[in-house]
Amino acid sequence: MNAELPMNASASSLVQVPALAPRTALARRFMDVRARSAALASPLSAEDQCVQSMPDASPTKWHLAHTTWFFESMVLEAFVPDYRVVDPQFGFLFNSYYESLGPRHPRPQRGLLTRPALSEVQAYRKAVDAAVLAFIEDADDATFAETESAITLGLHHEQQHQELMLTDVLHLLSLNPTQPLYRTQAPMAPAAPLALDWLAFEGGRVAVGHGRSDFAFDNETPRHDVLLRPYALANRPVTNAEYLAFIHDGGYRDPRWWLSDGWAAVQANGWEAPAYWSLRNDGQPRQFSLHGPGGLDPHAPVAPLSLFEAAAYAAWAGARLPTEFEWEAAVSQALSESRCSLERRSPERLVPTAPTAGPGLRGLGEVWEWTRSAYDPYPGFRPFEGPASEYNGKFMVGQVVLRGGSCASPPGHVRATYRNFFPPGARWQFSGLRLARDL
Amino acid sequence: MNAELPMNASASSLVQVPALAPRTALARRFMDVRARSAALASPLSAEDQCVQSMPDASPTKWHLAHTTWFFESMVLEAFVPDYRVVDPQFGFLFNSYYESLGPRHPRPQRGLLTRPALSEVQAYRKAVDAAVLAFIEDADDATFAETESAITLGLHHEQQHQELMLTDVLHLLSLNPTQPLYRTQAPMAPAAPLALDWLAFEGGRVAVGHGRSDFAFDNETPRHDVLLRPYALANRPVTNAEYLAFIHDGGYRDPRWWLSDGWAAVQANGWEAPAYWSLRNDGQPRQFSLHGPGGLDPHAPVAPLSLFEAAAYAAWAGARLPTEFEWEAAVSQALSESRCSLERRSPERLVPTAPTAGPGLRGLGEVWEWTRSAYDPYPGFRPFEGPASEYNGKFMVGQVVLRGGSCASPPGHVRATYRNFFPPGARWQFSGLRLARDL
Amino acid sequence: MNAELPMNASASSLVQVPALAPRTALARRFMDVRARSAALASPLSAEDQCVQSMPDASPTKWHLAHTTWFFESMVLEAFVPDYRVVDPQFGFLFNSYYESLGPRHPRPQRGLLTRPALSEVQAYRKAVDAAVLAFIEDADDATFAETESAITLGLHHEQQHQELMLTDVLHLLSLNPTQPLYRTQAPMAPAAPLALDWLAFEGGRVAVGHGRSDFAFDNETPRHDVLLRPYALANRPVTNAEYLAFIHDGGYRDPRWWLSDGWAAVQANGWEAPAYWSLRNDGQPRQFSLHGPGGLDPHAPVAPLSLFEAAAYAAWAGARLPTEFEWEAAVSQALSESRCSLERRSPERLVPTAPTAGPGLRGLGEVWEWTRSAYDPYPGFRPFEGPASEYNGKFMVGQVVLRGGSCASPPGHVRATYRNFFPPGARWQFSGLRLARDL
Amino acid sequence: MNAELPMNASASSLVQVPALAPRTALARRFMDVRARSAALASPLSAEDQCVQSMPDASPTKWHLAHTTWFFESMVLEAFVPDYRVVDPQFGFLFNSYYESLGPRHPRPQRGLLTRPALSEVQAYRKAVDAAVLAFIEDADDATFAETESAITLGLHHEQQHQELMLTDVLHLLSLNPTQPLYRTQAPMAPAAPLALDWLAFEGGRVAVGHGRSDFAFDNETPRHDVLLRPYALANRPVTNAEYLAFIHDGGYRDPRWWLSDGWAAVQANGWEAPAYWSLRNDGQPRQFSLHGPGGLDPHAPVAPLSLFEAAAYAAWAGARLPTEFEWEAAVSQALSESRCSLERRSPERLVPTAPTAGPGLRGLGEVWEWTRSAYDPYPGFRPFEGPASEYNGKFMVGQVVLRGGSCASPPGHVRATYRNFFPPGARWQFSGLRLARDL
Repeated sequence: MNAELPMNASASSLVQVPALAPRTALARRFMDVRARSAALASPLSAEDQCVQSMPDASPTKWHLAHTTWFFESMVLEAFVPDYRVVDPQFGFLFNSYYESLGPRHPRPQRGLLTRPALSEVQAYRKAVDAAVLAFIEDADDATFAETESAITLGLHHEQQHQELMLTDVLHLLSLNPTQPLYRTQAPMAPAAPLALDWLAFEGGRVAVGHGRSDFAFDNETPRHDVLLRPYALANRPVTNAEYLAFIHDGGYRDPRWWLSDGWAAVQANGWEAPAYWSLRNDGQPRQFSLHGPGGLDPHAPVAPLSLFEAAAYAAWAGARLPTEFEWEAAVSQALSESRCSLERRSPERLVPTAPTAGPGLRGLGEVWEWTRSAYDPYPGFRPFEGPASEYNGKFMVGQVVLRGGSCASPPGHVRATYRNFFPPGARWQFSGLRLARDL
Repeated sequence: MNAELPMNASASSLVQVPALAPRTALARRFMDVRARSAALASPLSAEDQCVQSMPDASPTKWHLAHTTWFFESMVLEAFVPDYRVVDPQFGFLFNSYYESLGPRHPRPQRGLLTRPALSEVQAYRKAVDAAVLAFIEDADDATFAETESAITLGLHHEQQHQELMLTDVLHLLSLNPTQPLYRTQAPMAPAAPLALDWLAFEGGRVAVGHGRSDFAFDNETPRHDVLLRPYALANRPVTNAEYLAFIHDGGYRDPRWWLSDGWAAVQANGWEAPAYWSLRNDGQPRQFSLHGPGGLDPHAPVAPLSLFEAAAYAAWAGARLPTEFEWEAAVSQALSESRCSLERRSPERLVPTAPTAGPGLRGLGEVWEWTRSAYDPYPGFRPFEGPASEYNGKFMVGQVVLRGGSCASPPGHVRATYRNFFPPGARWQFSGLRLARDL
Repeated sequence: MNAELPMNASASSLVQVPALAPRTALARRFMDVRARSAALASPLSAEDQCVQSMPDASPTKWHLAHTTWFFESMVLEAFVPDYRVVDPQFGFLFNSYYESLGPRHPRPQRGLLTRPALSEVQAYRKAVDAAVLAFIEDADDATFAETESAITLGLHHEQQHQELMLTDVLHLLSLNPTQPLYRTQAPMAPAAPLALDWLAFEGGRVAVGHGRSDFAFDNETPRHDVLLRPYALANRPVTNAEYLAFIHDGGYRDPRWWLSDGWAAVQANGWEAPAYWSLRNDGQPRQFSLHGPGGLDPHAPVAPLSLFEAAAYAAWAGARLPTEFEWEAAVSQALSESRCSLERRSPERLVPTAPTAGPGLRGLGEVWEWTRSAYDPYPGFRPFEGPASEYNGKFMVGQVVLRGGSCASPPGHVRATYRNFFPPGARWQFSGLRLARDL
Repeated sequence: MNAELPMNASASSLVQVPALAPRTALARRFMDVRARSAALASPLSAEDQCVQSMPDASPTKWHLAHTTWFFESMVLEAFVPDYRVVDPQFGFLFNSYYESLGPRHPRPQRGLLTRPALSEVQAYRKAVDAAVLAFIEDADDATFAETESAITLGLHHEQQHQELMLTDVLHLLSLNPTQPLYRTQAPMAPAAPLALDWLAFEGGRVAVGHGRSDFAFDNETPRHDVLLRPYALANRPVTNAEYLAFIHDGGYRDPRWWLSDGWAAVQANGWEAPAYWSLRNDGQPRQFSLHGPGGLDPHAPVAPLSLFEAAAYAAWAGARLPTEFEWEAAVSQALSESRCSLERRSPERLVPTAPTAGPGLRGLGEVWEWTRSAYDPYPGFRPFEGPASEYNGKFMVGQVVLRGGSCASPPGHVRATYRNFFPPGARWQFSGLRLARDL
C-alpha cells in the first residue's frame, strides 16, 4: 500500500460528517470506503488476489467482487427500476451465503475463479460505484429514505471485508516459503513496558447493547440491562513476553489449563505457539506478519490466538476471560469518562502495537479480545428485515464473542457495542485477550 | 428388562431417605443406584454390551466399568490406606477424560475391549461395591465426612451414565438390520390430545442456579440473579404430529428456518426427519425405539432432535426456544406452586409419552428440552476441587444447554437447576423442545 | 484351541482321500473343514467374535456365518427344490460382495451385528451342515455331479476364511492394552541359523498356472507358457535378524529404498518396524502374536510386512523380489524334484518358524511371499460361471500377488499355482519375502 | 494459442534433424521444445497459470518453473563449474519428487505460490535457457558427451509436462461456472463413421520394449521377448456414440460390468458419464473441452475415461482391453508395414478427432488407450543412473499402463514402446480405449 494513500483521511471522514447534506455525506462516505478497499488490494498482484489458502479464507478478488455484489443486489436490483445487472453470473459467483438470493458458488472453490479476471472485477466495481452514486443523487426522497440504511449496511459490510482482506492475505503469504511481505513497516520507537494493573468495576445493573439512532448491526440490539458482579479488568492486553512465559512453562503440554476441545485442538494441530510464530533454538520467537518475517515486540499484545489458547493462558495466569458484558460495561464507562480510546495508537502499522503508559484501559483496538461469552442472541433480538436478515442471526451457535477491534480493522469501524464472533478454534484474525477476575 | 425389576422402587428410595442415619442412608442409596445399572444391562448379551456404534457412544460394559472405576479412584484409592486396586490396567482402560488421573484408552477404541470380559467387569463391580460399603461402615467420622460428597458425586455420575447406557444402546440396535428390541413395551391407553397453550411469565429479576445444601453439580452454581423480559412458554413439548407438519411443509428443504451450521448439517447428513424415524410412502412416520420398530403416538413429544432441528421448528412455528433461565424460572415457580412435576407420567416406558390434560407445565421429564443458551459458566463459577474439577468446566464451549429430563433419565435424578449439555448437532439423546415467545 | 483338536488330522484328510467313494469323500471333507472353523473360533469369547477392529477385517462370527451362507446360497438355494432358508435376513447380513446375489450389509458395519447372537450363528451352521450333508447323500447323480464343484469351491472358500479368522483376530487382540493371547505356544527347540544361499534357475520357456483336473481357483488358470530370464532365489525367506539390520541402518528413514507410494505410507502411518513389533530401548524387538506378547526368533521369517516394506528391504539388500512366475517355476521344479515342501515344519505354531538346514527351497509355508507381480488376469482368463464369477476376477487391479502360504494357512490348502493377493499397503497377513536376483 | 505459433514446425523439427551437427541440432531442439511450452501458456492469464484445481494437477506456472529447474539442477548445477543458481529457493519450490535432490514444497500446496510471480518464472526460464545454450556451445567435447543424454531427457520431460499443462488447465477451467475456453476451435469437416472392424494378430514369441540407440525412458527397457496368444484388436478406439449406448443401457448402474474398486468409485463419486460430460434431458451429451462447452462428435474417440470405465465398457461390449504387449506388437507390426501412424490427423485440435476410413489401425494418437497391464518393471529393468533414477521406477505399483498418445501430446513425442501410466481411477487425461479379444 502506498504511503500517500489517504487511509486515515477516509476513515476519519467516515466518523466526522457533521455539516453535509445527507445525500452528499452518504456519497462521500461511499466513495471513501470503496476507495479504501481498492487501496488495500493495490500492493497485491492479480495472482495474489486470486488464490484461496484455506476454506475459511477468501481471495482478495472475491472480497472486492462480493462487496460490490452486495450493493448491486441489495440496492440497485432492489430499488432501481429496470436496472440491468453487470453480469448475470456474478450473482451466483459472488453471493456469500444469502440463501434467499439464490444458489451460489461453493465457498471452498472461490480460489478456482481465475475468471472473471481481476481487471473484470475492477470494472465491475467501477460500474456499480457509478450506478450507486447516480442513484444517491437521483432517487426521489421517498426511495432515498428507504434505501439509505441498505447503503449504510453495505458500507459497514465492506469495512468488515476490508479486515478479512488483510487477515486472509496474511494467511496466504504465510504459507509461501519465500515469505513475501504485504508492505514494509514504518519504523517506530519502541514503547516502554506497561506494567499489568487491575482496574476495578463495581458491576450491578448495567445497560448493554446499542440503543442510539446511528448505525449498528442487528446483533448489537436491543439494548437491555444485565446484572454484573464486581470485577476487575487488566489495564492492557496480554503481551508477547507474558505469553512466551506461558509457553516456556510448558503451557502447550499441560492439559490442566485447557478446555477439552482446546486440548484436542492442540494435539490434532500440533500447536506449540500462536499462529505465524516460529520458536528459534534460543527460545526467542519470531512471527511472520504483513510486514514480512521479523522479531516480536515483547510488550505488544499477543495474537493471533484461538479462544482455546486465550482461555488456557488466563487459567495458567490465575485469572479468567471477561464476559462480553463486563467488557462492554467497562469500556462504555471509560469512554464516557474519556479514559480510553477505541482507536489505536499507530493506525498505519499492520501489527499489534505496544500500548503507552497512561490511566484507564490501554491498548484497545490492537487485537480483538476474546470474551468468555458464547455468541447468543440478545433478549428480544430481531434480525434485519429483507435479505439482510441472514446477516448475523443464523450464525448464533458454536461461536464466541470478541470485542474491541484490531490493527487490521478500518479506522472508525468499531464501537463499544460491536460484537465480533468466530469459532473457538479460529486463529487467523488478530485475536488476543485481556485478563479479568472477580472482585 | 424383567418386569419384576424394582427400577422405580430403587429410584424412589433415592429421593426419600428421611429417617435413616447418614451412613445407612448413603449405603442404601449406593446399593440402589448400583443395582439399577446392573438391571439396565441385564436385557443385553455380552456381545450387545461390548460393541461401540459410534465414537460419541460407549459400550454398556464400558459404562459399567467406568462408573466403578470412578468410585475406585475417587474414593477408595484416595481415602482408603493400603487399598490395592482390583486391576492396575483398569485405570487406563476405564478413565473417561480425567487428565489429572493419568493416560487413558482412546475413546473411539472403547469398543475394541473384548477383554476384560463382561464377567470380569461384573466381578470388578462386586469387588468395588463391597469395598465402598465396607468403607462407609468402617471409616472414622472425619474421613466419612470428607468422603461423603465424593460418594454422592459418584452416584449422580452413575445415574448420568445410566441414561447414556440406554441412549447408546438404542443407537447400536438402530443400526442392526434385524431391528432387535431392548425390551417389550407395556401397553398403555393413549392420551387425548392436549392443545397447545401459552403460559405467561412476568420475568424481572429472578434467582437461578442451585443454592441449597443438597447435591448439585458445580455447573449449577453459584446461584445468582438474572433479568428476564416477560415471556411465555408452551404448556407442553412439541409433538410428533406437529413436527410431522413441519416435515410435510418442506421444513427440511427450506434454508430460511435453519441456523447456518444446521443447514450444513442437514445437507451433509441427508437429514429428512428426527433420528430413528422412517417416513413411509404414505407420509406416516415410524420410529425405532428401545421397544423395537413401531408407530408413533402423534401426541407424544418429538425426539430425538438436534438443536438445529429444534431451532428450525421453532422458527417455522413463529416462535423461539426459551433461554435456560426462562425455563428454570418458569419451572421453579411452577414447582413452588405445585403446578408441574419433573417426574414423568409413565416411568417404565422408554419412549416419550403424551402428556395428559391439566394446568401448568405439562410433559416435563419426557424429553430433554433444548434451550437457546450456550453452555457458558455462571458468574463466579468454581469447579469442584480435586480430580472432579474436570467434571464439567472444561466442556463449557461449543455446547448448548438442555433442561428437564427424559424418558431415559433415572427417576429422581433431575431438578429445576440441572444443566444438561450437548453439541448442537447431537441427536441420539431423547432431546426435543418446548416453544417460547416474547410477551 | 484345545490340544486335542484334530487340526492336522482334518487337514491331512483333506489332501489324502484316496479310496473313498466320491460322495463319502466329499461328505467327510465337508465335515472336516467345517469342524476346523468351529475349532478355530473356540478359544474366543462371544465378545471376541463379535467386534470388528478395522474395515479390512471381519469379526469371527461374521466369518462363521458368511462361509455358511456361501453353502446355503450357492448349493442349497441353487439346487435343492423347496429349500427354505434358515433366516431370510442372513442373505443380506452375510453376503460379502456378490452383487448378483442382492444387496448386502456394509462391510465396515459388520462389527455392529451383536444380533444374531453367536449362538444363533452356531445354530445356523448346524442347520446348513445337516442340509448339505443330506443333499450330498440324497441328490440324484446328475445333480450331485452338477454341484460337486460348488461344494468343493465352498470348502476352499472356507479355508481361505480360516486364515482370515486368525489374522483378523490377531489384529483385534493387538489393539487391546491387556495384550490377551489367543492360545499358548507349544515350546520348541530353536533352530540353528540357516545361512542365506542363492539357488540358480535357468528360466527359459516354462509353463505356469493350474492345468490339472483337481481343484484350483479360476485366477490360476489357464495354464500357459511364459519366458523367464535366468535368475536366482534365496534358499529361505528374509529373517527377523536380517530385517532388524535394515531398521538399524535407518531403512525406515531413507526414501532411496522405497516405492513412492511406500514412502508416503511410511510417513502417513509412522511405520518404523513390521506390524505388531515394538522396539525396546535396547534396540531389540518384541512382537505381539497369537501366542501373546513375546520375543522374536531372530532366524524365523519376518512378517507381517507390506509390499512396500518387502520391496524396500530387497532394494536395501541389493536384490529384488521375484516375479510370481519365477517363484512358481522354481517351486514347481523343486517340488517335482522333492527338494521343497509347501507344508510348514511346525503346523501347530501360529507364528512363522525358522527353517531347518537342508538343500533346496526352505521355509516355504511360513509366510506369504510378496512377489513383484501385479495381480493381473492370465491370458485367456475365464471367471467361474454363475455367482462365483465374482470370486476373483473383479479384484484384478491395484493388488499384488503373494505366493506360498503362511503359518495361518490351513494345512493342505495351498499349492504352487496358488495366487494370493492384497493391496501393497496391507500388513495384517503373515506376509514376508524371499529375495531374488538376476543371473 | 495463436494460429501462427510454429507448433507443428517445432514438432516436426523434433523428429527430423538429419543433417545438423550434434550441438547445433540439440540447441535447435532445445529452443523448439522450450518455445512450445511458452506458447502453450500464452493464452492463459497470470491468474489462470497460478491456481491448482486439485492435488493431482499442477498450475501452469509450476510446470513452466519445474521443467526449468530440471535443466538447472540436472545439467547446469551438475556440470557447469561455479554455476550460481538463479534463486536458491527455486530448488525447494520446484522439485517435484526427487528425494535425492533435497526437500521440496508439498504437492497439494503448489497453487499457493502466488510468488514468485509469473513474470519471475518467465525470467527464470530465459536465464536458464541462455545458460543451457551457452553450455551446449561452450562445453568441451567430453563434457558435452556426458551431458547430452541429460539434456535430451530434460526435453522429453518437458514434453510430458506440456501434455499435463493442457490436461491440468482443462480441469481448472471445467470447474469455473463461466465455462471459459482455452482457445477457439478451428472448424473441421466431420468424418464419415468408421465401422468397427477386427484386425487379427497371430501373437507368438514377439519382442517388446525399446532396443534402438535413440532416446527412450528407462521404463521401456530392456527389450525382451514375450509370448502372446492369437488376438484381435479393434481397428479404431471406442467412439462417443458407442459409449453413449453403454450409458443408455444402464452401464453406470449395473455392477456386473465393473471391477470391484471401479464400482466403489462409481458410487463414491457419483459418476454417470465420462469426465466433463453433461447429459441433457434429451439424453444427448455435451462435453466441456479446451475449446469451451460444446456438442460431441459421435464418431470421435470417447475420453476421458478412468481404467474402471474403460474396463466396464469392454465387459459390456463382450470384449476386453488388450495387454500392453498385444498393443505394442500390433502397432509395431503395423508401423513396419506402414499400416498405421502414431501421429494424429488434426494436430491443432485439442479434442479427440474421429478417424477417417482406411486399412490398419486407425485413430492412434487421439486418446491414450488403457491396457489391461499393471505398470510393472520389465525383466532386467535398470533405472536411469543419478538423480533421474527416481524418474519412473518408484511409481511401479498401483498404476496401469496406457499406450498411444493423445490430442494433447506434443507431436513427435510418443512411440510404439512408450509406456504412459496412471492410477486406475484417474480420469483427467485424454484416456480412452480400443477393444481387444481372443482369437
